[in-house]
Amino acid sequence: MFREKIKVLDCTIRDGGLINNHDFDLRFLRAVYKALSEAGVDYMEVGYKNSKRLFSPKEFGKWKFCDDQDIKQVIEGIDSNTKISVMVDVDRVDIEDVPPRKDSPVSMIRVAAYVKDIDKAISLVNHFADKGYETTVNIMAISRALDNELNEALQQLEEESKAKVIYIVDSFGALYQESVEFLIKKAKGIVKTKEIGMHAHNNQQLAFGNTIEAIIHDANFVDGTVYGLGRAAGNCPLELLLGFLKNPKFDIRPVLDLISKEFIPLREKIEWGYIIPYAITGILDEHPRAAMALRNSDKKENYREFYESFIGQFHE
Amino acid sequence: MFREKIKVLDCTIRDGGLINNHDFDLRFLRAVYKALSEAGVDYMEVGYKNSKRLFSPKEFGKWKFCDDQDIKQVIEGIDSNTKISVMVDVDRVDIEDVPPRKDSPVSMIRVAAYVKDIDKAISLVNHFADKGYETTVNIMAISRALDNELNEALQQLEEESKAKVIYIVDSFGALYQESVEFLIKKAKGIVKTKEIGMHAHNNQQLAFGNTIEAIIHDANFVDGTVYGLGRAAGNCPLELLLGFLKNPKFDIRPVLDLISKEFIPLREKIEWGYIIPYAITGILDEHPRAAMALRNSDKKENYREFYESFIGQFHE
Repeated sequence: MFREKIKVLDCTIRDGGLINNHDFDLRFLRAVYKALSEAGVDYMEVGYKNSKRLFSPKEFGKWKFCDDQDIKQVIEGIDSNTKISVMVDVDRVDIEDVPPRKDSPVSMIRVAAYVKDIDKAISLVNHFADKGYETTVNIMAISRALDNELNEALQQLEEESKAKVIYIVDSFGALYQESVEFLIKKAKGIVKTKEIGMHAHNNQQLAFGNTIEAIIHDANFVDGTVYGLGRAAGNCPLELLLGFLKNPKFDIRPVLDLISKEFIPLREKIEWGYIIPYAITGILDEHPRAAMALRNSDKKENYREFYESFIGQFHE
Repeated sequence: MFREKIKVLDCTIRDGGLINNHDFDLRFLRAVYKALSEAGVDYMEVGYKNSKRLFSPKEFGKWKFCDDQDIKQVIEGIDSNTKISVMVDVDRVDIEDVPPRKDSPVSMIRVAAYVKDIDKAISLVNHFADKGYETTVNIMAISRALDNELNEALQQLEEESKAKVIYIVDSFGALYQESVEFLIKKAKGIVKTKEIGMHAHNNQQLAFGNTIEAIIHDANFVDGTVYGLGRAAGNCPLELLLGFLKNPKFDIRPVLDLISKEFIPLREKIEWGYIIPYAITGILDEHPRAAMALRNSDKKENYREFYESFIGQFHE
């Protein structure tokens, strides 16, 4: 029996953009949008809305900026109930660049923030909510949040923010399901008037299992990406999520086709997934940046040395 | 805090043997045995003890038969506390080929059986226990067991068998953690005088998560394989298990080295892991054999057609 409230957000293009400078072409985005629409996925997140004063459009692809006219080209002529989402980072967005919801193809804006930036996140999210958007706050790197600070942040989000959903984000792929249970229950206990969401990373092959765990404990917004595409180890594979959820509106087959035709060839060009250095950073609750650097070096398979480099750091 | 009772069994060579006709060479086995010994892994399973009347040694490698003299060559001269395990299938073993424990390098014999064969399994396991071996019964394809038949089998195992451990085996990689919880609790409730074990397959990237789930509910024997090597989607990655378990006797580093030096090159020669046709058979609770055949055909990436071939069968 399915839970109708569960919404699936695909962030393939947004999280995947972190490994190709957000430089997917229009044809690829339209293929993804068409497949997600046919599959019945609720939201598609296409990238970040970053300030062009801070980042040069010469250095990054379109999906680091997500101009409305570019999004319109993606969705034009494709029959769909899939809503468009964009992500915003604290301190990196020009809010005056964001038009009112009624003038935009974007339905949802998600604000990503660390616990320490929660006041800035609330200010942003309320601004976007006032412009008519559905909004979320995504609490990043939650595996490292101090309990008292997290409690206060959740309390503030409940009382002061207009966000529709508060997301638990396991940025480092470090959580085991006992901690997912702890965090989701905590969030549900404090944030009573909003939905709770789960965004997992797959360093330890736990993104799907942890997302199921979050669903068991009543998270109703869950993120996936096609074939797990995403930075470093990637994310919860959307195809597994659709196989698990019982809502008859979902159809896994368009996503299977999309993987065959687009993602198998793409995986030959860019790397993501279960790769030992990412597993190591997950086990050690570390940001994957050192592992990403290792994979771009001539020591890419020197796992023991990489592991021991962290053990050394612990003595500092 | 760790639970000292938890024992880790590595079945890399045994389950991995299912994709190369059990034909690993001596050098490779010694490398694996040495690394597992240094890592503090409790058991290493090297293969099946099959009858040479049923299977020809000309067609299969040594580890389909596991002669004691071959095992002795693997372990000779390597300092180790890692015990050797072999697996036996119902109806495929010549029990007179198995010497008393005191004359063998093997410590543990595991009997794999479907629920319907539980009487045969008990007869075998008691025979081996009487010869002095540690023994287990591994209940295969448990995702398809009828509840009343499974209850009866567990009751019989508790009352009639001398097995030390009863394993839940998710042969098809079909279980979600709610069902793992259900099955482990059921087994613990009926089999009160033995330990419960978990052997998971990784079709849906849930092998590690489901193994953690089993540990949470007091399973004390858990199987892993190096880099997840195993038939089709493979198994619970040993390195993740060692990263999760807190017993200070475990050291992940020899396993990291082993993956760098042996398993990355091996993966270029034989295929296992997260591959969509195996995910599909897991989602549909099917044996992976059709997916394995697909991967050896020229339609290996035709996922939709493969998925729909099962949907068609449902109407038969």
